[in-house]
Amino acid sequence: MSNEARSLLSITDVGRDEIEEICAAASSFEEIGEREIKKVPTLRGRTVVNLFYENSTRTRVSFELAAKRLSADVINVSADASSVKKGESLRDTARTLLAMGADAIVLRHPAAGAPALLARWVDASVINAGDGAHEHPTQALLDIFTARKRLGSLEGVRIGFVGDIEHSRVARSGALGFGRMGADVVLIAPPTMLPLGVDALGARVSFDLDAELPELDIVYLLRMQRERHATSDRLPSEREFVEGWGLTRARAERLRDGALLMHAGPMNRGVELDWDVAELPIALITDQVTAGVAVRMALLYTLLGAGQPAEVPV
Amino acid sequence: MSNEARSLLSITDVGRDEIEEICAAASSFEEIGEREIKKVPTLRGRTVVNLFYENSTRTRVSFELAAKRLSADVINVSADASSVKKGESLRDTARTLLAMGADAIVLRHPAAGAPALLARWVDASVINAGDGAHEHPTQALLDIFTARKRLGSLEGVRIGFVGDIEHSRVARSGALGFGRMGADVVLIAPPTMLPLGVDALGARVSFDLDAELPELDIVYLLRMQRERHATSDRLPSEREFVEGWGLTRARAERLRDGALLMHAGPMNRGVELDWDVAELPIALITDQVTAGVAVRMALLYTLLGAGQPAEVPV
Amino acid sequence: MSNEARSLLSITDVGRDEIEEICAAASSFEEIGEREIKKVPTLRGRTVVNLFYENSTRTRVSFELAAKRLSADVINVSADASSVKKGESLRDTARTLLAMGADAIVLRHPAAGAPALLARWVDASVINAGDGAHEHPTQALLDIFTARKRLGSLEGVRIGFVGDIEHSRVARSGALGFGRMGADVVLIAPPTMLPLGVDALGARVSFDLDAELPELDIVYLLRMQRERHATSDRLPSEREFVEGWGLTRARAERLRDGALLMHAGPMNRGVELDWDVAELPIALITDQVTAGVAVRMALLYTLLGAGQPAEVPV
Repeated sequence: MSNEARSLLSITDVGRDEIEEICAAASSFEEIGEREIKKVPTLRGRTVVNLFYENSTRTRVSFELAAKRLSADVINVSADASSVKKGESLRDTARTLLAMGADAIVLRHPAAGAPALLARWVDASVINAGDGAHEHPTQALLDIFTARKRLGSLEGVRIGFVGDIEHSRVARSGALGFGRMGADVVLIAPPTMLPLGVDALGARVSFDLDAELPELDIVYLLRMQRERHATSDRLPSEREFVEGWGLTRARAERLRDGALLMHAGPMNRGVELDWDVAELPIALITDQVTAGVAVRMALLYTLLGAGQPAEVPV
Repeated sequence: MSNEARSLLSITDVGRDEIEEICAAASSFEEIGEREIKKVPTLRGRTVVNLFYENSTRTRVSFELAAKRLSADVINVSADASSVKKGESLRDTARTLLAMGADAIVLRHPAAGAPALLARWVDASVINAGDGAHEHPTQALLDIFTARKRLGSLEGVRIGFVGDIEHSRVARSGALGFGRMGADVVLIAPPTMLPLGVDALGARVSFDLDAELPELDIVYLLRMQRERHATSDRLPSEREFVEGWGLTRARAERLRDGALLMHAGPMNRGVELDWDVAELPIALITDQVTAGVAVRMALLYTLLGAGQPAEVPV
Repeated sequence: MSNEARSLLSITDVGRDEIEEICAAASSFEEIGEREIKKVPTLRGRTVVNLFYENSTRTRVSFELAAKRLSADVINVSADASSVKKGESLRDTARTLLAMGADAIVLRHPAAGAPALLARWVDASVINAGDGAHEHPTQALLDIFTARKRLGSLEGVRIGFVGDIEHSRVARSGALGFGRMGADVVLIAPPTMLPLGVDALGARVSFDLDAELPELDIVYLLRMQRERHATSDRLPSEREFVEGWGLTRARAERLRDGALLMHAGPMNRGVELDWDVAELPIALITDQVTAGVAVRMALLYTLLGAGQPAEVPV
């Protein structure tokens, strides 16, 4: 983890061993999610704050459920209703929450780097729940957990992130995380949808989905971030994107045996994938969502429960 | 209940016997609401999601309290803050919530039939908390519970739903539900405020409140849904509605002895009833609200607790 | 307290002895906030509703945490999502919440006097969490608690409230509360930022911060309520305010030894105080926030726990 306050800011904060430890804990917690009583007293009396400067259902609910199943108290703060409107800085807002006894702040923020600044400013656990087009490390953890569950080791597994790489914190954290686990990562996108400095992700780049498709063990589709494209000149049309980089039914049939399909959601059915492709048995999309709660439980347990016996008290 | 997933989509999903069972359970739960410690461990570790695509305080809070008093974890998701803005379908949103371990989805949606579609798509308990101008079955259940508590059997009891029938899911579920319990239902409205196909509700229709008033055991006033009338030509003016179909003080005095007044709230005082008519001893409006929590506890208990002993563990 | 329903509407509802009792209870609860398990079962099964007609993060979260640490169930209702949009009155909304079993309503409202009206209408505990430019009594309680912790008795302590007195419910409750504890209160502001009838607060008025500064034991800075000044002619410019009434670094150095700095937040750094003045060791701003949770726990305990043994069950 990045500092004594035990935060998770980037997937590069955690080494391969740590990722494997989190996955092991998540396996235990996943079992809890299958019980009728999906709750353990592990973090009773602890307070987790979801501080969200951008809308999100799935990530917020996933963290909220993870904390509640560990019996922590959860406080939701969204930018709309917050002191932000009164001109308060992120730093002062976070300090206030900590002064009230928050043990961890789960931060989603439109500015890349905001969680890292926050972790430098405050002495508490900060979890990056997505910062601009930068990183989304818990997504990478849950994706790794999901893929390992199916494939065992990720050593040598070829995973292709396909689509709007430029705006995708999912691709960025995923490329770094899967790379760290020994996977062979390729970023597949129209040339206009690749960020400057893509080399830093340590992955091969390709413009040609059809050439790559037969070699992929995992095809990871990225959400077309329409809301960030409002005034964009990235593509002549969505239709053109679908033609070249959408996972149509025809393309899905050209995947190799045993290949898997992932997507972090929310999906734009009809854009990055054909309407019914998400229903194919190769799709892990629902598994990713389920894994998300377990992995976030494991992470909160690891960050807030340290100093206590290492085994998961289930 | 409508299917194996044990959902409540329409008041017609439950027969007279089932309604009576829910009412019996609600009586037990109502007692809990009068205690200092208003909480039982019945649904500990279960997760109830309030998925609201329309604003509502009273229904959302009522379900939230019902679930919390049963010790369930509650997650509130409102359309404003949700993935809806990112273009996700209801189906995908619901699947995501279920993949996270939701045991029941309480759905309010502007589209009639949305809960029924959802129950067909997903294998989980779906509770219709109001779908467009279609149904609001838990409102009917709590109204029946409230009326039975005062009157005993509803056999032969004459109830008149008065006002904006066309937009009223309360009237629709209420007419079907009270009818099922043996009540004699009459729908009283200006001709322009009756929906097409009103016959399907199996109730008599009248345009003349003053003629009906002396025969009613229960007068059930419907909220004038001003927000749905913005561009409407239903009535020349609210004043004209009040003259013909509002429960003025004078009209209230013409009710028979023992007649009761109901309203699902929120009230437009001065429109569907005179300012102080809601304060008369005949008004059950507050009882309805109190009953709402108990009936929703009974429903959640019935839908989520099945397979367990039938008695209420209080 | 003001009535049998045991409400806190104004700081003048509580006498010096009662304030001291609340502070004593808050000390016990503050200790709980320092534990790893920050939770006691005191109000298990009770329901606290935060009914907020104005946005607020810090006050809402503070009450929410206070109630949750006492194991109460908390329901958040904000005006945006509420029946208000359907035209329901405050009175009917509150009655509905009480009929559902709310034990206390924490009310923030833009209209001065709204909590007092509500307490007259309903038979329940009402806590004023800020009403217009009128009062914010829990802020005064936590400020008194914080100052007493540092200074012991407040008898003869000189406290200056500085800035936008006219719009400040913090200054109003603070002046009355600190006065009641024997402090010597001075209100320091530009002449255009004083309300009519300022005499009723029983405090001396001064226009000259520089003259008062060396004599103050506590300088209490008020937030410049920019959002209420949009069309205001109170001041030629913020810059002019800073020149005359901002706590610049230079002014901070002229404070007497042992003088303390308070602010209720959110701060406008660069306006009512220089950017780094809040970081000086004399600043109690974070202590105030921490105290807020403990004081609100003590208050909820006092209002809802009466009839039970007086000692705090920790």
